[in-house]
Amino acid sequence: MTPADSFRRDSTRRVDAQAGASPRGLDEPRFADVLAAAARIAPHARRTPVLRSHSLNAIAGCDLHFKCENLQRVGAFKFRGACNAIFALPEATAARGIVTQSSGNHGAAVALASRLRGVPATVVVPEGAPAVKLAGIAGFGARVVRCAPTMAAREAAAAQLLAETGGHLVHPFDDADVIAGQGTTALELLHEVADLDVLLAPVGGGGLLSGCALAAKSLRPGIEVLGAEPAGADDAAASLREGRCITDRTARTVCDGLRGHLAPRTLALLQRHADGILIVDDADTLAAMRLLWERLKIVVEPSSAIAFAAVLREPGRFAGRRVGIVLTGGNVDLDTLPWQATA
Amino acid sequence: MTPADSFRRDSTRRVDAQAGASPRGLDEPRFADVLAAAARIAPHARRTPVLRSHSLNAIAGCDLHFKCENLQRVGAFKFRGACNAIFALPEATAARGIVTQSSGNHGAAVALASRLRGVPATVVVPEGAPAVKLAGIAGFGARVVRCAPTMAAREAAAAQLLAETGGHLVHPFDDADVIAGQGTTALELLHEVADLDVLLAPVGGGGLLSGCALAAKSLRPGIEVLGAEPAGADDAAASLREGRCITDRTARTVCDGLRGHLAPRTLALLQRHADGILIVDDADTLAAMRLLWERLKIVVEPSSAIAFAAVLREPGRFAGRRVGIVLTGGNVDLDTLPWQATA
Repeated sequence: MTPADSFRRDSTRRVDAQAGASPRGLDEPRFADVLAAAARIAPHARRTPVLRSHSLNAIAGCDLHFKCENLQRVGAFKFRGACNAIFALPEATAARGIVTQSSGNHGAAVALASRLRGVPATVVVPEGAPAVKLAGIAGFGARVVRCAPTMAAREAAAAQLLAETGGHLVHPFDDADVIAGQGTTALELLHEVADLDVLLAPVGGGGLLSGCALAAKSLRPGIEVLGAEPAGADDAAASLREGRCITDRTARTVCDGLRGHLAPRTLALLQRHADGILIVDDADTLAAMRLLWERLKIVVEPSSAIAFAAVLREPGRFAGRRVGIVLTGGNVDLDTLPWQATA
Repeated sequence: MTPADSFRRDSTRRVDAQAGASPRGLDEPRFADVLAAAARIAPHARRTPVLRSHSLNAIAGCDLHFKCENLQRVGAFKFRGACNAIFALPEATAARGIVTQSSGNHGAAVALASRLRGVPATVVVPEGAPAVKLAGIAGFGARVVRCAPTMAAREAAAAQLLAETGGHLVHPFDDADVIAGQGTTALELLHEVADLDVLLAPVGGGGLLSGCALAAKSLRPGIEVLGAEPAGADDAAASLREGRCITDRTARTVCDGLRGHLAPRTLALLQRHADGILIVDDADTLAAMRLLWERLKIVVEPSSAIAFAAVLREPGRFAGRRVGIVLTGGNVDLDTLPWQATA
């Protein structure tokens, strides 16, 4: 079954398709949810520009369109999903407050979206998280709760807060409204560049890639949708290969935004709508990152550059095609350049 | 006479106004020339985005609109003026080739615009110019001629080339078509944000500021137009104060794009259309530059950040106003961060 086939079934008979593809009965977003998210976040999120570069096109041998989510509020696409999830809540639920756990951009996104909705937010942050990201979260008025730097400690701390406060958890990616919100990235890109042949996005927990795949295949069934994943954290590719969520690997990559694992919900969406995952070494990602700074004149973090690196690694695959790339975020420590730190 | 008065006279009775304001009989651009430039360069130049930032607005206490010419082709607004000047030439003139002298962005702009027009270009570059900028000029197919690093040597080399080739000189700023081309920056910004109260741009030779002042006062006579100039190269402010071009000072500033002096043509336009020049220390410019990288997530060169630094220095002056800022270019050496180099 091609992804286009699966999309057509999904869009016409959602319940059946969901039941078939998602035996766990997970609440999965549909394309209508992405459209609703776009309307819901429009007053708050930025419609980010799509940048192009003649010189990068010449280097890559294809026609590149960069969707610049590093220019999104809080400096990352994460604001789309958090904003959609938080503004979708009933008033009484939202009023009890939002809880999440994150060492990075999702924490800042939840903090800002909660402030915009006018409800309290608590973010569980593991010890060792970058001071700059901590300051961002606190700067938006959220309460920060520290925990040990393990996934178990993060989840335990979040669970305890939920029990204490009766608050609502907004998971970084395992949440239908978050996924629908991230999908608005592809929606905007395809509204601006309708005839893309391929869309690439990084994959960590899979919220962005699954939302974008859903939106892209709905708008343009023939489009190819690919993820890009670090070689040192290639659990998404393995999960798709084995048909189950692989969560027991230790991630080793400079792409700090891509260390998460797929959840059953994002795995199911990727099985249905994505066409493959490309694996990229960190050295190639850092070289691509530098090239983006130099030629596009924008600040992107390593996780952002991986999809472009994937295109540069396989020029034959993309030759002459119209390629959309999601640049996911731009939150880096400007005291040290990443290519200096790793040189 | 207010700038608005002077504009009205200029736009209705050009010959008289020019004769009155410009006793030297210089060929000065009018607003119609800026409009013609916009149409002429439209197939080649980028319509650059206008970026905003809630956090920078909060820091500055005003409503900031950044016109991102660092995202222009060749990474600087210079492409607008060079493109307009080169495409405005009669075919026979253009065919004899373009000559210019520049150690920076204007050289790359002339090289690219000449290639697009399909005519040869020669760029005189002083010894000691950054290797990265030299590579850019040569990369666009221009012939590079080296000379001693003095203004006299540059002008002598250019004059000799003009005599040898019969080519056409496109001066970096002392050229009516170049000025009109740079003015399209303000045209686009005001088309996107019609109700600006103030427009700021850096001033070196004055091509950008005079073109933008002409365009802005024509579209919106009540707008305030201000230049920003390094304390170590404050010849434009002195020239406006004394009513003559001061060209005998040695510039000492990290803003390598702002070391030029006004020419009579740009001085006359600034006398008529600009409302003042703000002086900024390099340390403030570098701090503002870092803030732009951090919050706007874009790469700008020091010369680009000076207008924003001027706003941060005088919060009272800009409080609550709608402020347009031209970010002029993003060509920096990414091997060393400027705040590291000067720390």
